[in-house]
Amino acid sequence: MPVRERLRAALETPRFQHLITAIIVINAVTLGLETSATAVERYGTALTVVDHLALYIFVAELGVKIYAQGRYFFRNPWNLFDAAIVAVSLLPTAGGLSVLRALRILRALRLISVVPSLRRVVTALLAAVPGMTSIVLLLGLVLYVAAVMGTKLYHETAPEYFGDLPTSLFTLFQMMTGDAWSDIAREVMSRHPWAWVFFVVFMLVCTFVVLNLFIAVVVSAMEEENAEGPAQATEKLGAALLAE
Amino acid sequence: MPVRERLRAALETPRFQHLITAIIVINAVTLGLETSATAVERYGTALTVVDHLALYIFVAELGVKIYAQGRYFFRNPWNLFDAAIVAVSLLPTAGGLSVLRALRILRALRLISVVPSLRRVVTALLAAVPGMTSIVLLLGLVLYVAAVMGTKLYHETAPEYFGDLPTSLFTLFQMMTGDAWSDIAREVMSRHPWAWVFFVVFMLVCTFVVLNLFIAVVVSAMEEENAEGPAQATEKLGAALLAE
Amino acid sequence: MPVRERLRAALETPRFQHLITAIIVINAVTLGLETSATAVERYGTALTVVDHLALYIFVAELGVKIYAQGRYFFRNPWNLFDAAIVAVSLLPTAGGLSVLRALRILRALRLISVVPSLRRVVTALLAAVPGMTSIVLLLGLVLYVAAVMGTKLYHETAPEYFGDLPTSLFTLFQMMTGDAWSDIAREVMSRHPWAWVFFVVFMLVCTFVVLNLFIAVVVSAMEEENAEGPAQATEKLGAALLAE
Amino acid sequence: MPVRERLRAALETPRFQHLITAIIVINAVTLGLETSATAVERYGTALTVVDHLALYIFVAELGVKIYAQGRYFFRNPWNLFDAAIVAVSLLPTAGGLSVLRALRILRALRLISVVPSLRRVVTALLAAVPGMTSIVLLLGLVLYVAAVMGTKLYHETAPEYFGDLPTSLFTLFQMMTGDAWSDIAREVMSRHPWAWVFFVVFMLVCTFVVLNLFIAVVVSAMEEENAEGPAQATEKLGAALLAE
Repeated sequence: MPVRERLRAALETPRFQHLITAIIVINAVTLGLETSATAVERYGTALTVVDHLALYIFVAELGVKIYAQGRYFFRNPWNLFDAAIVAVSLLPTAGGLSVLRALRILRALRLISVVPSLRRVVTALLAAVPGMTSIVLLLGLVLYVAAVMGTKLYHETAPEYFGDLPTSLFTLFQMMTGDAWSDIAREVMSRHPWAWVFFVVFMLVCTFVVLNLFIAVVVSAMEEENAEGPAQATEKLGAALLAE
Repeated sequence: MPVRERLRAALETPRFQHLITAIIVINAVTLGLETSATAVERYGTALTVVDHLALYIFVAELGVKIYAQGRYFFRNPWNLFDAAIVAVSLLPTAGGLSVLRALRILRALRLISVVPSLRRVVTALLAAVPGMTSIVLLLGLVLYVAAVMGTKLYHETAPEYFGDLPTSLFTLFQMMTGDAWSDIAREVMSRHPWAWVFFVVFMLVCTFVVLNLFIAVVVSAMEEENAEGPAQATEKLGAALLAE
Repeated sequence: MPVRERLRAALETPRFQHLITAIIVINAVTLGLETSATAVERYGTALTVVDHLALYIFVAELGVKIYAQGRYFFRNPWNLFDAAIVAVSLLPTAGGLSVLRALRILRALRLISVVPSLRRVVTALLAAVPGMTSIVLLLGLVLYVAAVMGTKLYHETAPEYFGDLPTSLFTLFQMMTGDAWSDIAREVMSRHPWAWVFFVVFMLVCTFVVLNLFIAVVVSAMEEENAEGPAQATEKLGAALLAE
Repeated sequence: MPVRERLRAALETPRFQHLITAIIVINAVTLGLETSATAVERYGTALTVVDHLALYIFVAELGVKIYAQGRYFFRNPWNLFDAAIVAVSLLPTAGGLSVLRALRILRALRLISVVPSLRRVVTALLAAVPGMTSIVLLLGLVLYVAAVMGTKLYHETAPEYFGDLPTSLFTLFQMMTGDAWSDIAREVMSRHPWAWVFFVVFMLVCTFVVLNLFIAVVVSAMEEENAEGPAQATEKLGAALLAE
């Protein structure tokens, strides 16, 4: 058996998978501990060492995988997911880019690609996305139209909510989730008594569209259930490709 | 082939559809930019020119469509939808009628009638409406009865929430969406210790009726799914009528 | 045909049904107008006259129905519903019993028993109730246990939320609807750092039970759909009994 | 018939079950009354006596059950549930451990194991749990990753919301329930204008995952419905084991 074959087999042994899973969990815990000032003070060096070690192991794992699987590596979206997460961690974090440092915790999401049950759930979630695009587009259109109208009408009355287009978009997204929409509406209505038309129509349209988005997902989930799980079929296909 | 036939064919070429879609999107963007003071300062004239051009094109498109399709034009509800939106834009906006100016963004909703996938989604949404009328009527009745009771009982205690019938209706609509209902209830209860009966009963009845509204929509959506999509059938019928 | 038979037939003519429906709507409108001080000032006498007239007509209608249907009158729950509503309106409203005056608007709910589509919807809603009793009982038990615990633990820290058992019950009902629960939790947690356990467990248990309540209703609604509508069957049975 | 047999039969007579149910209800009421200062002042001794009596009866019932059922006692999870609840009540409550005193009301939950309809509902609820573990794990992972990121990025800007990891976890749990999330987002955004990315992505991911959690439960509930109720089957099996 050539080296690549043997490596590929080694990468798929349960033992290796469990090792990687353990490293991800340990790394997630150390990254969590780094948020505590007292933990950093006491074990700062140890935490950094573990963090770097974990990163080296992830890079080495990726390298071996690319060597072992060759061009098939890039056909598996989960490999790309892993590579992207590791790439983010390798970016230079100098110069106060605290955001990049904070993104390191995304490595914990590698659990999704390593633990089969999580992987299945996420695959199933993503399978629901295509059936939703039209309704999400419609929702985006409604949001955009309402934001332009809201900005034009109320940017002087309530600048903190409708001052410019991005602010209006955030405000209307908030109203769509139903959070504290009446406070905003009442504030605007104190100056524009007819503003309730805008807000009530927006709430009704959004609720109705979101409700139907929801139904679309339920209905497609049930059809999928009947159609013997296409997600598993895809995984089998991928395994078949690799096995050739 | 007579002129009308040729025009009708031209109107339905994908090229023409894409052109109209592009103009709608460009117009939506310029209307969005008009909400920004700095954008208006720099490109004000250009934005107005694009806006007028787009409107002229829409009017011309409508005129050609009416000429080409004749009386069939008015049988297609989407045409009426387009005509209404263009008509709103043609209304005189002089005299500080900022609302009419703000309504121009509704033109972006023409995307719904032009993009087939959005059109299908909205048709499906509207198909769910007839099955809901009875429950919506019931909800309206509950809202009206509760608003009259609330106004009678609490208009002195909490005039900002139950001062008159329209205010009460808005307040109860807000409570129905679950937003900040306890603040209002607690304020009223500080004077009327038994007001919790009114509020808890209202919340329970509304939740129960809305829940059933929701179920009615889900159930009818599933039946529709099984019944081979009546919406498409309607569209086919319309196409058949036009093709005669 | 004897008088009773003829009366019974007259009561069921569409013309008579429409007349009663119109009177209920008019009465609902006048009761709504009574909430407006200016309307009362101008048309006060007219409103009172219409209100009394409507009440007389309802009483007369009930009397005739009882005479015409005899003991079958009391077998139809909708008749009892109508009778109860009219009885509330006949109670003396002297002595500042503003609540009883406010309850007169309940007469508008007679629309439910008169308009067939509303009647069907409410019958369907009520048909879902028996399948929910166990879960509602469970929810009540959870609420009671949580209220006793909350009162014992936090009645000193947050007397406005957990001062005594009824106050705790209201607070926990509010948290169950998800409204402003975090404000209450944060206030209590400022004194009891471990209070998050109580609140998070309560929120999770309630969400889970309510979710299952919801599912129970959906599942039973779908079974009912398949089982040829027992509600209509009941109505037919009632009609058959009356026709004997 | 030997003593154990006779005892076992006696324990399962409806009369005995009703007696225990009555004692649980009475005990729940007295524990509720203990939250009222005036009730304690007037009937304090009576309440304590009833409370102790109920506890003695529960202990005796458990003892008899263990003697009668032998090792089968520990195979029934409901027996363990009852034993745990009684054990909590037997812990010493001296030394200001008000929490343990408050936990005594958990005894009211014994109603679940005694009333068959409640028992069935809870069994059905628990049957839905295994199908949810993967999604709950995913949700926990998302929450953990977001909490670490939130703490790293915003612990200086909003220490009351993102001061340390546990605080962030509570804040994000709150946002997941949709309660007052915009207040927190707006406060953070006043210092970090790009924070909306974090909050909007978190809200969308959570809503989407929770929605799918919901759907998983609905779908599995419907399958279960078709599969002749495995919960009852389990109970039957348990009864069969005891009857051998």
